[in-house]
Amino acid sequence: MAVLVECVPNFSEGRDIKRVMKIITPFIITEGVKLLDYSADKDHNRTVVSVMGEPDSVKKALVEAAGIAISEIDLRKHKGGHPRMGAIDVVPFIPIQNFTMEEAVELARDTARELASQYKLPIFLYEKAAAVPARENLANIRKGEFEGMNEKLLQPEWKPDFGPDLVHPSAGVTAVGARMPLVAFNINLNTNNLDIANQIARCIRHISGGLRYCKAMGVALKERDIVQVSINMTDYTKTALYRVFEMVKFEAQRYGVEIVGSEIIGLAPMAALIDAAVYYMRIEDFKIEQIIEQRMLE
Amino acid sequence: MAVLVECVPNFSEGRDIKRVMKIITPFIITEGVKLLDYSADKDHNRTVVSVMGEPDSVKKALVEAAGIAISEIDLRKHKGGHPRMGAIDVVPFIPIQNFTMEEAVELARDTARELASQYKLPIFLYEKAAAVPARENLANIRKGEFEGMNEKLLQPEWKPDFGPDLVHPSAGVTAVGARMPLVAFNINLNTNNLDIANQIARCIRHISGGLRYCKAMGVALKERDIVQVSINMTDYTKTALYRVFEMVKFEAQRYGVEIVGSEIIGLAPMAALIDAAVYYMRIEDFKIEQIIEQRMLE
Repeated sequence: MAVLVECVPNFSEGRDIKRVMKIITPFIITEGVKLLDYSADKDHNRTVVSVMGEPDSVKKALVEAAGIAISEIDLRKHKGGHPRMGAIDVVPFIPIQNFTMEEAVELARDTARELASQYKLPIFLYEKAAAVPARENLANIRKGEFEGMNEKLLQPEWKPDFGPDLVHPSAGVTAVGARMPLVAFNINLNTNNLDIANQIARCIRHISGGLRYCKAMGVALKERDIVQVSINMTDYTKTALYRVFEMVKFEAQRYGVEIVGSEIIGLAPMAALIDAAVYYMRIEDFKIEQIIEQRMLE
Repeated sequence: MAVLVECVPNFSEGRDIKRVMKIITPFIITEGVKLLDYSADKDHNRTVVSVMGEPDSVKKALVEAAGIAISEIDLRKHKGGHPRMGAIDVVPFIPIQNFTMEEAVELARDTARELASQYKLPIFLYEKAAAVPARENLANIRKGEFEGMNEKLLQPEWKPDFGPDLVHPSAGVTAVGARMPLVAFNINLNTNNLDIANQIARCIRHISGGLRYCKAMGVALKERDIVQVSINMTDYTKTALYRVFEMVKFEAQRYGVEIVGSEIIGLAPMAALIDAAVYYMRIEDFKIEQIIEQRMLE
C-alpha cells in the first residue's frame, strides 16, 4: 500500500494565468506526484493547489515550485482580498495513507529547512508542526501580513523557526505545517435571516462552546435568498459530519427553520462520508476494509 | 486509471484446507491479480473466493485454478449443504473500474471457451452473459444439481453453451457469467417473530412486487433472539441501499417493530455507501470525484 501525503500550497498569484502555470509545472511533471486540483482566484489574487503523492516526491516538487514562485512573484507589488505574508504563503502537509501525523510533521520540518537554506526564506512552522503553542494558529503568524513582517520579526518571540531573521525582500515569509484533512461542509437553511445562521454557528463551533473539531460562521447566499452555516470540519475522525448535521438540524428547530440542503466543497476523504452512511443505516461492525476501493488501494 | 474486474468463483471444496489452498494459489501468485478474500465453509463444503485485477490476468489465474480444482475435487464423492453442479460451480465476473458490463460479458465468454476446450468441461453462460433468457437465473441452470445433470443435458434446451454435451465425470458442469457488484445488506428487527421478517421481505423484494434490484427473505438470528430481513441488492446504482432501509423501516412500523441495526456482509463498492450519506445529509451536487480515494485510483 503506497505511502501518500497531500500538500495544499497557497501561492500569492491568482491573476496572471501564465505565471500560475509556470509555478505549478513541477506538480505536473514530477514523478510520484499527482496534481489533484488548482484554483486561481482573481479577487484573492491567490492560487490554492492540491497535490498528492509519495512524500519525498511531493517535497521535491514543492521546493521547485517555491523557487519558481519566488522568481515570479514580487509581494511589494501584490494586492488581493486574502491576507498574505509570502509569495509561497502557506504549505500544509496532510497525511493520507500509511503516513502518520508525526511523519507529516517531520516532512514539514524537512521541507521548511530546505526552503530556508535554498532560498534564504524565513519560515514559521504552524499547526501540528508548530514548535510553540503561539504558532499553532496560522492567523497569529500571518497577523501584520507582508507589510508588517519586518517589524514583527524584530520581536524575539517571532524569530522564524528556519532561515534568516529578515524578511525576504520580494517573497516575504512562509508558513509550513501539518494538519488533518479538512472537510468544508456547508448547510443551507430555508430562511434569509443571517442572524439565525450565525446563532447556529455559535452553538456548533468549538470556539464558542460547540464541537471540538468544528469551525463555523453564518453566510448569506444572496442569489438563492437563503442563509448557510458555513463549516470547516478540522478532524472528521473525531467530530463526525453527521453529528454536526444533526446538531444544526435540532438548533434550527427552535427558530422554526429547516435544513434544505448541504454541500461538500472540494475534496473529502471517503471515510468522512462512509461514516455517515454507517450511522444513518445503523450498520453494525462495519470495517473500512469492506469497501472495494479501499482494497484496491492496498 | 487501471482496468479492473472482480471475479468471485465458487469451488466445491470447503473442508480440506490443504486442497483449498492448492486451488487458490494461482490467485496469490499471478501478477496483476489480487486475492481480496476467501471463505471455506465446512457445512456448505464450498469455498467462495473474491479476486480483483486486470482482466486478462484474472482470466489466466481462474483457468489455472479451475485446472487444479478439477484434479483435486471429485463431485461423485462431494456432500454439502449448498446446491452445486460442478467442481468449479460458478464463475461470475463483475466490472469494477474502466470496464463495461459488455466487456465483462466478453471476458466471461472467452473464459468459458477456454475452460471448455482445456478441460472438456460443459459450460453454461448465465446472468448478463446468458445467451437465452432461461439461463439468466443461475437457479434454473443448477436445478437437478450434479446428480441430475446427465439427464438434464440430454434435453435440447439444456445443451451447454460451450464444451461437450456430456457432463464431466468428476467435475460436472460450470456456470460462467457477468453481473453487477452485489451488496449483501441485512436489516435486524427488535422482534423474534419470523413471520414479520418474511412479510417485510415480501414487500420489498422484486419478485413479489417490491424494488427492482432487491432480493430478500426473513431469517431468524437465534442467538440474539431477533429476526432479520436478509437482503441482496443486485444493482445498487439503480436501487439505492437507503431506499430499501427506509422501506423496511416504514413496513416494520405497521407491526410496532423497529430496526435495531443492519450489517453489510463482505465487500461493497464505495458509492453504495456514499450514496446513503449524500441522501441523509442532503448533500447537493456531490460528485464521486470529490472523494480523495477516488482520485487516488485515477
